Amino acid sequence: MEKKLKLGIIGLGTVGQGVVKVLSGMHDIEIVCVAVKNLSKKRDISVDSITDNPLDIVNNPDIDVIVEVAGGLEVFDLLKIAIRNKKHIVTANKELLARHGSELFDLARKNNVVIMYEAAVAGGIPLIYPIKTSLSANVFSEVAGILNGTTNYILTKMEEENLSYDECLLKAQQLGYAETNPKGDVEGFDAMYKIAILSNIVFNKRIDIGKIYHEGITNISSIDIKLADEFGYKIKLVAQAKKMCINQESDMLDIRVHPVLVSKNQSLADIKNATNAILLKGFPVGEVMFVGAGAGEFPTASSVVGDILTIKSEIKEKNKILPMTVCHHSEYAKQINIDDTVNCYYLRINAVNTPGTIGKIGLACGKFNINLSCILQKGVNDDRSATIIVITEECFEKDINLMIKDVEKTSEIKVLNRIRVM
Amino acid sequence: MEKKLKLGIIGLGTVGQGVVKVLSGMHDIEIVCVAVKNLSKKRDISVDSITDNPLDIVNNPDIDVIVEVAGGLEVFDLLKIAIRNKKHIVTANKELLARHGSELFDLARKNNVVIMYEAAVAGGIPLIYPIKTSLSANVFSEVAGILNGTTNYILTKMEEENLSYDECLLKAQQLGYAETNPKGDVEGFDAMYKIAILSNIVFNKRIDIGKIYHEGITNISSIDIKLADEFGYKIKLVAQAKKMCINQESDMLDIRVHPVLVSKNQSLADIKNATNAILLKGFPVGEVMFVGAGAGEFPTASSVVGDILTIKSEIKEKNKILPMTVCHHSEYAKQINIDDTVNCYYLRINAVNTPGTIGKIGLACGKFNINLSCILQKGVNDDRSATIIVITEECFEKDINLMIKDVEKTSEIKVLNRIRVM
Repeated sequence: MEKKLKLGIIGLGTVGQGVVKVLSGMHDIEIVCVAVKNLSKKRDISVDSITDNPLDIVNNPDIDVIVEVAGGLEVFDLLKIAIRNKKHIVTANKELLARHGSELFDLARKNNVVIMYEAAVAGGIPLIYPIKTSLSANVFSEVAGILNGTTNYILTKMEEENLSYDECLLKAQQLGYAETNPKGDVEGFDAMYKIAILSNIVFNKRIDIGKIYHEGITNISSIDIKLADEFGYKIKLVAQAKKMCINQESDMLDIRVHPVLVSKNQSLADIKNATNAILLKGFPVGEVMFVGAGAGEFPTASSVVGDILTIKSEIKEKNKILPMTVCHHSEYAKQINIDDTVNCYYLRINAVNTPGTIGKIGLACGKFNINLSCILQKGVNDDRSATIIVITEECFEKDINLMIKDVEKTSEIKVLNRIRVM
Repeated sequence: MEKKLKLGIIGLGTVGQGVVKVLSGMHDIEIVCVAVKNLSKKRDISVDSITDNPLDIVNNPDIDVIVEVAGGLEVFDLLKIAIRNKKHIVTANKELLARHGSELFDLARKNNVVIMYEAAVAGGIPLIYPIKTSLSANVFSEVAGILNGTTNYILTKMEEENLSYDECLLKAQQLGYAETNPKGDVEGFDAMYKIAILSNIVFNKRIDIGKIYHEGITNISSIDIKLADEFGYKIKLVAQAKKMCINQESDMLDIRVHPVLVSKNQSLADIKNATNAILLKGFPVGEVMFVGAGAGEFPTASSVVGDILTIKSEIKEKNKILPMTVCHHSEYAKQINIDDTVNCYYLRINAVNTPGTIGKIGLACGKFNINLSCILQKGVNDDRSATIIVITEECFEKDINLMIKDVEKTSEIKVLNRIRVM
């Protein structure tokens, strides 16, 4: 009989329970012990051995693989101990990998173990391992995606049911899509961690998440969604990373997360509710897109257990590693500052409708070399104010900021929202 | 220095040339020799060593991996010799794998070598290896896809430019999307080979392609496309394989390729031109979709070279294999006959517009237990004939065939086309 693969699991929340359920039918894999924070918490599954001391697990010589599905940064030290104890790691922890991945991967290489993390980005969608294997012949120029299901759910509901941001956030919380403190999702942190991890493997560079620009969806109102729709766009929270070519510096990366107006012709515009989608561009493959559930008990367990089975199947003995899972690069990417990026912009402007208002907006644009692509004013409100929508051609972020400052000098004009156009 | 991986390539057509170009920058891989049919044919690349005797390659002890990009069944014997000579195989040959895959995989297992074939299904889209690794925790219930770019291109053009099938086929041939003899694509053979290969790995069963129902797009007219559009559908050539549960036989497979009316809400309806898309349904992952270029020099080369790099990276010494690439199952699937499947149907009927015509159609449906879902007649032609569109609820394929025979007994009624609804 084949030797059983022995697991220690850290965390028994939604994902952990999903993993235990999916593993329950697999007789060649044994869960030696599960570490939880609170032993007395009620759970709808039972495990043979449970502990509230995770050190029992990472130091247990009987365990081959540590499955970390607790999340957060507290597990960092535990995983370092586990790696030093020559245990392979399967983790879904995006924040940990985005912040401390380099250190963990270095340590894993030294100790001849692998770290697998398919579940850390886009839940059940196979992405990390395919990029490292089937797509390994490619030089990528761009990766862009809807990586956060919570915000995509909120934006979809705002659009389809014409509800406010707050109403949709509440809905998302009631359905368990958003947490009580939704900051991690709605302010773009979650998508930022994920795009950092993806950029790392797509461009073979270490990424400083401190240099990733991120902006959430809290400023998006249903009026923006309605107006974008009139111009042929949907509003999506997109995480993207692109190779830039500025002043002969071809290895500069533009990595960021923020809401964008996506043209309805583009495939990302069709991604609804909590679904995730990732678009990769490279040579020789051209464009490929992956779509699926980005979170949830079972989709995430699919990736976690896929990693466990890959380790079981490909790594027969200890001290054998999968070379393609190893992180060889140690150089940090040069990351462009958001001020130096070039974008098109949607501006929603509130103005007192006096003669010359449009003229003032136009002049301010001209002053900073910004061409207009569309402009729309639909009538005048009872209080003599008017909503004016401007969509610009490509210009520097720093110039649009200067233009906004300039135009707002006049007390009659106020830029209520500024959203980049993809 | 690391040992170079030494390749022998069979075939230097579009894909072969793409592979040579992509490999040209990789210094740890050496192309020892390329076998071609015609040495004097002009090509836009040159290789160091070329032969018109492929036996030189499969018998060359210096070569580690045979890259077969010639296509067709002639290479079967060559690959068997190569495997017996302990060479790993990378192939894009869908017909060979669909017809003789079982024999090749058995032989590879005996000889401790791997056969990689990411390029055989859906060109550049990573699919085979992700299913075997990242998605390996899943039990799949269904795989469905647009697997043939040529026919999807023709159907898209017919729809968008309101052209006939023949005009669009000619266009596809001029652009190099379709061959001079287009039979393999337009009659559904190409998609049939691909769904056979996918079903094999998704359901872990051997597939008898003789039992796969296949029907091409040669009977689709632009009038069908227009009428389908009015009812909210697009017409696509879809290859699908589903697990059935009939009379307690839960391992029966329903595998087939034919045109279908796809509701515009479904993601496959949005797949345009030569793009391929594959939808997988399973537990625990739920639904995942992969979209990208299904053919072409470079996308296909992406998958071929990805396989070569995976072999190079994961298989250091000879006699080490990737367990996940091995085909362990030897049992044949039970495949359902198309007559026993249940579908909804679109019928385009031409009838002489006499009193009772609709009644006759309705009665024939009733006779065979077929419920109608939609019925449409728009006016009467000058010759007193009328076009009547019927969309049925679910019924047995054998019953719709009997109903059509029955209704056509009356000389005034003729069913001009019958297309299944997805």
